[in-house]
Amino acid sequence: MSTSSHSYPMRSGDDQHSYIHHSSYQKAGINGAEEKTRQFILEKLDLQLNSGLSTFRIADFGCSIGPNTFHVVQSIIDTVKVKHVKQNNETRLVPLEFQVFFNDQPNNDFNTLFRTLPPSSEREYFSAAAPGSFYGRVLPRNSIHIGHTSYTLHWLSKVPEHVCDKKSSAWNKNYIQCNYLIEEVIKAYKVQFIKDMDVFLDARAEELVPGGLMIVLGHCLPDGVPLYETWQGHVVDTIGDCLMDMAKSGILSEEKIELFSFPVYFPQFSELKGEIEKNGIFFIEMMESIGHPLEHMSITTDFITSMFRALLTTLIEKHFGDGVVDELFNRFAKKLSEHPFDFEMWKTQVVYYVVLKRK
Amino acid sequence: MSTSSHSYPMRSGDDQHSYIHHSSYQKAGINGAEEKTRQFILEKLDLQLNSGLSTFRIADFGCSIGPNTFHVVQSIIDTVKVKHVKQNNETRLVPLEFQVFFNDQPNNDFNTLFRTLPPSSEREYFSAAAPGSFYGRVLPRNSIHIGHTSYTLHWLSKVPEHVCDKKSSAWNKNYIQCNYLIEEVIKAYKVQFIKDMDVFLDARAEELVPGGLMIVLGHCLPDGVPLYETWQGHVVDTIGDCLMDMAKSGILSEEKIELFSFPVYFPQFSELKGEIEKNGIFFIEMMESIGHPLEHMSITTDFITSMFRALLTTLIEKHFGDGVVDELFNRFAKKLSEHPFDFEMWKTQVVYYVVLKRK
Repeated sequence: MSTSSHSYPMRSGDDQHSYIHHSSYQKAGINGAEEKTRQFILEKLDLQLNSGLSTFRIADFGCSIGPNTFHVVQSIIDTVKVKHVKQNNETRLVPLEFQVFFNDQPNNDFNTLFRTLPPSSEREYFSAAAPGSFYGRVLPRNSIHIGHTSYTLHWLSKVPEHVCDKKSSAWNKNYIQCNYLIEEVIKAYKVQFIKDMDVFLDARAEELVPGGLMIVLGHCLPDGVPLYETWQGHVVDTIGDCLMDMAKSGILSEEKIELFSFPVYFPQFSELKGEIEKNGIFFIEMMESIGHPLEHMSITTDFITSMFRALLTTLIEKHFGDGVVDELFNRFAKKLSEHPFDFEMWKTQVVYYVVLKRK
Repeated sequence: MSTSSHSYPMRSGDDQHSYIHHSSYQKAGINGAEEKTRQFILEKLDLQLNSGLSTFRIADFGCSIGPNTFHVVQSIIDTVKVKHVKQNNETRLVPLEFQVFFNDQPNNDFNTLFRTLPPSSEREYFSAAAPGSFYGRVLPRNSIHIGHTSYTLHWLSKVPEHVCDKKSSAWNKNYIQCNYLIEEVIKAYKVQFIKDMDVFLDARAEELVPGGLMIVLGHCLPDGVPLYETWQGHVVDTIGDCLMDMAKSGILSEEKIELFSFPVYFPQFSELKGEIEKNGIFFIEMMESIGHPLEHMSITTDFITSMFRALLTTLIEKHFGDGVVDELFNRFAKKLSEHPFDFEMWKTQVVYYVVLKRK
């Protein structure tokens, strides 16, 4: 099974810097979508749950190491069970068994995932890990009833071509994320994003049963807003500034920074919708941007530092080597405390929530 | 999903002492069984492969971390593919997809398993890990076409009751494995073995599709031969002697040894057969003891030391704490080189090979 893609998992294990302790931002967004998913399943899931189906299979694509993924799948299972009972004469009910596939890159820390699974006495599903890039098939065809992915699709399968090529007109210079001031750079990122989206949707369509649902949650830009106008974009630009400061102090070479770009792309809302429609393999049953519960909270410097550290450590270490991350995020935290962010001043990415139905 | 069982995985990772490098003995036995399995699948597997089946699911129960498990599943897949083509008109053939579930305890090192999977370009199956004790359900009902397990069923789900209870007549004293000189100890081990076998067979019967095969390979005693007459039994007795030597040197307390017994039981061939028949949930399609390819090789001290170290480290560390294993196996190797084993003098366990068919 050939699924080729670079892999930058979230920070593994459960030490103070790991993703397991710094995924509350993602969790808040997931909770916001939970009620919508419940409603949708109850009202519209059409899987002929009464026609002899004995195993209901759920997959979370790009699940990382928890705990968000456990929460999401449990909520889906609870809802499907309610629906199953409603649709059937309770006396003749064959209990549905659930199997959950936790998918992520093969170098994701599945040992930690398994170690932190809800206790088997409370868990009403058979758990399985399905390793592999979701930019490719990871499960047999027609095997999944509900797929889910949250905060994953901004990760491209690789850094777009030419973006780190100094001889190319798409060279991103010393920017470490998509530089919206260089037309060719935007184009390169966009091309990669479109290619990846198509691969993702095609693979999921094969894996889902007809009528199966794919729930996708993530960050995008509001229409007309470039990344650098959002606080999230500004945070990464500031991390880039810290890397350049380290180069000036002789800790890193500037050349190394010029050869580095995050494989991350945030589409605008309509752009994302357009790509799903162009792909055409799924019905868009619902697509909206939803408020994020943390949107109006005061977000602290510590919170920002910890979250981005957990998200970006693997990628940064892979390129710059060990021992850079501490220094980098110390500098970043210092910069943030010296020049506090006024989040009100910045635009923000929005959370999109999409329910796709396999045609 | 409640599956309760103690868990003592093989030595993890891939350092010099890990199971990954010291599983050649098991591999030799597996190779010996391979041809039999191929023949059986080709001649007798009756799964109506032509009736619209699109995914063929295989599970290896107690797979450890490889590489043996990869070899076994690939061989099964190759054979099923041949059979699938034979049974179908090639022009109308819908290619079969394969999904393989690697099962072992949740604290098995699945990260290493995934890291060492055959490269995705060569692997013709979707891989998944199914964590959990195989003394209980780990997969949905009616989902597996061929199950396999090798060298696992001598591991009991726990140390038999009372064997480590100094007040019990079934107390095993300072023996660290089933002491065949104490009737009550044998009985306690036997009771646990029967209980575990029943749970194992019942769980697999639920997971397999009707007509599905369960291939079981392992070590047992020839009828009428007690463990202590075999060289394998003698090796573990010698490890026990080394522990007692360490107690005498004040490194360990004798009390601690008295509270320790391996949760391992090797049934005699007819005893095993009898238990499967009594359980009654499977047809025994084939059951024989097969020669082990290494049987007539000269087995070196190093080989024995490395193999038993990889097998027993986790269990010993769990009871006696870190830092005991090096000393113990140094002493064991020394004892073995001072008093070399004459393997010819000892009886040996035999390898049993069983093919069960779900009724």
